Amino acid sequence: MVSVQFILAIGEVFIFTFNSYIFEKADFYTMSLSHALITDLYEFSMANGYFETLPRDTEAVFDVFYRTVPDNGSFVVSAGLEQVVEQLRGFHYTKEDIDYLKSLKLFSAEFISYLETMTFDCVVYAIPEGTPVFPRVPILTVKGPLIQCQLLETFVLNLINHQSLIATKSRRINLAAAGRPVMEFGARRAQGPDASVLGARAAVIGGCGSTSNVLSAAKYNIPVAGTMAHAWVQSYPTELEAFEKWAEIYPDNALLLVDTYDVLTSGVPNAIKVFKELRAKGHKKFGIRIDSGDIAKLSRKARKMMDDAGFPEATITASNALNENVIDSLLQEGAPLDSFGVGEQLITSSSSPVLSGVFKLAALKIGDGEWQPKIKLSNSKEKVTLPGEKKAYRLYHKGTKNAFADVIALADESLPEEFVGINMDPMMTETEANLKDFDAVLLTQVVVGPKAKSIETDTFKIQKHMYEKLAELPEETQRLLNPDRYPVYLTPALADLQAKMIKDHKL
Amino acid sequence: MVSVQFILAIGEVFIFTFNSYIFEKADFYTMSLSHALITDLYEFSMANGYFETLPRDTEAVFDVFYRTVPDNGSFVVSAGLEQVVEQLRGFHYTKEDIDYLKSLKLFSAEFISYLETMTFDCVVYAIPEGTPVFPRVPILTVKGPLIQCQLLETFVLNLINHQSLIATKSRRINLAAAGRPVMEFGARRAQGPDASVLGARAAVIGGCGSTSNVLSAAKYNIPVAGTMAHAWVQSYPTELEAFEKWAEIYPDNALLLVDTYDVLTSGVPNAIKVFKELRAKGHKKFGIRIDSGDIAKLSRKARKMMDDAGFPEATITASNALNENVIDSLLQEGAPLDSFGVGEQLITSSSSPVLSGVFKLAALKIGDGEWQPKIKLSNSKEKVTLPGEKKAYRLYHKGTKNAFADVIALADESLPEEFVGINMDPMMTETEANLKDFDAVLLTQVVVGPKAKSIETDTFKIQKHMYEKLAELPEETQRLLNPDRYPVYLTPALADLQAKMIKDHKL
Repeated sequence: MVSVQFILAIGEVFIFTFNSYIFEKADFYTMSLSHALITDLYEFSMANGYFETLPRDTEAVFDVFYRTVPDNGSFVVSAGLEQVVEQLRGFHYTKEDIDYLKSLKLFSAEFISYLETMTFDCVVYAIPEGTPVFPRVPILTVKGPLIQCQLLETFVLNLINHQSLIATKSRRINLAAAGRPVMEFGARRAQGPDASVLGARAAVIGGCGSTSNVLSAAKYNIPVAGTMAHAWVQSYPTELEAFEKWAEIYPDNALLLVDTYDVLTSGVPNAIKVFKELRAKGHKKFGIRIDSGDIAKLSRKARKMMDDAGFPEATITASNALNENVIDSLLQEGAPLDSFGVGEQLITSSSSPVLSGVFKLAALKIGDGEWQPKIKLSNSKEKVTLPGEKKAYRLYHKGTKNAFADVIALADESLPEEFVGINMDPMMTETEANLKDFDAVLLTQVVVGPKAKSIETDTFKIQKHMYEKLAELPEETQRLLNPDRYPVYLTPALADLQAKMIKDHKL
Repeated sequence: MVSVQFILAIGEVFIFTFNSYIFEKADFYTMSLSHALITDLYEFSMANGYFETLPRDTEAVFDVFYRTVPDNGSFVVSAGLEQVVEQLRGFHYTKEDIDYLKSLKLFSAEFISYLETMTFDCVVYAIPEGTPVFPRVPILTVKGPLIQCQLLETFVLNLINHQSLIATKSRRINLAAAGRPVMEFGARRAQGPDASVLGARAAVIGGCGSTSNVLSAAKYNIPVAGTMAHAWVQSYPTELEAFEKWAEIYPDNALLLVDTYDVLTSGVPNAIKVFKELRAKGHKKFGIRIDSGDIAKLSRKARKMMDDAGFPEATITASNALNENVIDSLLQEGAPLDSFGVGEQLITSSSSPVLSGVFKLAALKIGDGEWQPKIKLSNSKEKVTLPGEKKAYRLYHKGTKNAFADVIALADESLPEEFVGINMDPMMTETEANLKDFDAVLLTQVVVGPKAKSIETDTFKIQKHMYEKLAELPEETQRLLNPDRYPVYLTPALADLQAKMIKDHKL
């Protein structure tokens, strides 16, 4: 167990990285390192430490949940589970992964050989993708050997945080578009290749109908969308010729980009000429895309020009730095827009680019002992964790599909028919509610482990599930600005356990 | 050339995606699709259209540049080139890529077979990674067959935009840390797996000394950092026992996380007990990490407690939602911090999560004809592109390493010894400057093509280059808040060409 100090000279400043290790050889670059190494070092350090200092049969329960909704919304649309399950089903370290871990000289030989031969024994419970999930409700729970659970933290959070963030942003943008198709156009501004591919998938889960990203379309069976960029128009002697050449090649797909030179004096008049030629040949689908300038003003004028020319069926697509607020404002102003291409602001959720989901220890069991609930304290009320293995339910008014609250209970209690729910939202004045006359539906299913159900992997079926679950929520929780808070209650048993543990630790 | 209309039922709303294509089979999921498909559909549509309607030997020049600096800074630190070069050197479409493209029924059989057998003939010029680059200066230029250039747009932008964004954010955070080590801790909040791995690489280019991300560390030979999470402390009966077990396993790496229960009443006193035990055994490196609460107040009190206990050498690391502003403010307040772990705000550049780099056509040549300069107009002055094949230079005061301006020239002009530079920044009142007594250094090198130089791939050598190039810039351009604008001039020949082309298109 030797820690390698590392001293790095940068210009004339010597920087001493207190706690860093550097690998001696640089030849891993081209080797078969696996995604299982997308793990913070401390997961391995802790796992090695557990291995050395705790009984080998120590088991744990960890919950993934989040506290704050991006963009001041009231819920997050869960996504990313398919990639988590994919990763966990084949979970192992490659020979190169192991060689690298050995090279760090941080871990015992026994622990390394445990990693080499590890069979993955955890059970994972998760809320299906596309479900609206409220703060503090476990989206995913891992139960199994402490060491294995710990090793999952980083990449599980990475996948769930990222895709849930983008699905949530997409839901907002699609809500603003009010039924008009939204195309995901963000590949060039996504944060890396995966973010473009997985982000497009998440965008569809949140409501988009298509993507421009060919790889994502191919992998996730998503309709692929897009026509021309400015370079097309520039590559021909005149804009009219560029449009005519396009119409020759794609006569049933003439969505012409009209803002390369000037929308109203050049783009739209040239487009109308081409529409006439196409109509004369029997084609029936025409449209323009506006990618700059004042979209409201330009689209109104373009609409009138196309209507006056006898093309009321020609559509107008808007793009250029759109988000839910811009789309909402354009439509409020009456801009005659038929569809939207949304790029950077969707694919990065740029107004709120982080979902801070966490992975917190909830219970521990050593050997044949009892499960011990575990808690993380904080001066901030909302940062105190919920101890113990838990189950979450959505409560519906009896006999209806109208949800009115979620409830988190201890896993071993059966939900009473009537009880006083404790509201954990520190911002709510109503701290308790008498809950009765409800149907309770368990939110999670087993997705990895002996009783695992296969999860839905059809992206559009997940989108459909999202719309169905959304329709069950109170409408006021769904609005873009200042949505009403939807309550998440604890059962008295869970609330009492948390209160007792806070008290015990304060002694 | 059949376009497939696609009608999708979502709940009870029928959405008609005007311009979308869906693949009939869903079996590509597990197949060997390649990153070459991370391409907006329209790149393929345009390439197919060029193939059908323009001479096959049409050549083009495209420039990658950006207009707006994230976080209101004055420059971007370029990054991502290594991944661009890697992708381009082996550029081809797999059999599965081709099968998918065929299935879209959008492209001619001849074009598909061109893609199948395509040999990549472009020359790519680029500014080395780690160079501070100013708005409008081409970071990368692609010259070659129009079709091939067009197909590169999306993934080149994806790689350059993402990593340059993170490198730039990292530079800001490291500037605020004023020489104290910054560890990249963001894997769990990065936008997907690639963003965690490539983002950590970019963070090192921008100045970080280590990462917690094991895969990125292994691939890019970066020191890997990190000790324990709250789960470690919770997994033992008491905090003291957790610390003691840690010290047993990692006696030379005792950076103890002190905020699981209470920093000052529990965490620091327990840490001091463990430091005493370690010192008694001859160990000499101790430290604490504070991950919540008021870091300034807590670190001051913890410092005093450790000093009073005889551990002035024990370090204090801060983490928890840090960015350049928080770090700067903590240090201004005199918080006694030795190093920082920076997570979500660095790995997503959360205050400014998009770098809007673009890929714009600058010139076109058909067969043996002349190179024709190309322009994209806009009502917004800064959105008008620079026509023609160009070269960019950094100007230094003669005989010094002090840079004072960049100049963009036409590729075929030699830079005069003295000339009037035209400032293209629309916000500057000084629109011209007499430039003389300078040394001009070309910013780009050939990175793909017959005369390609091998690029630097040692991440810390790229970081060193960044610090060297930074030191050449005026100090006032480097500050975090309201940096001075560094001028980028055009030569008279380039400015005249642009003016003439704007005039021509307005006719």
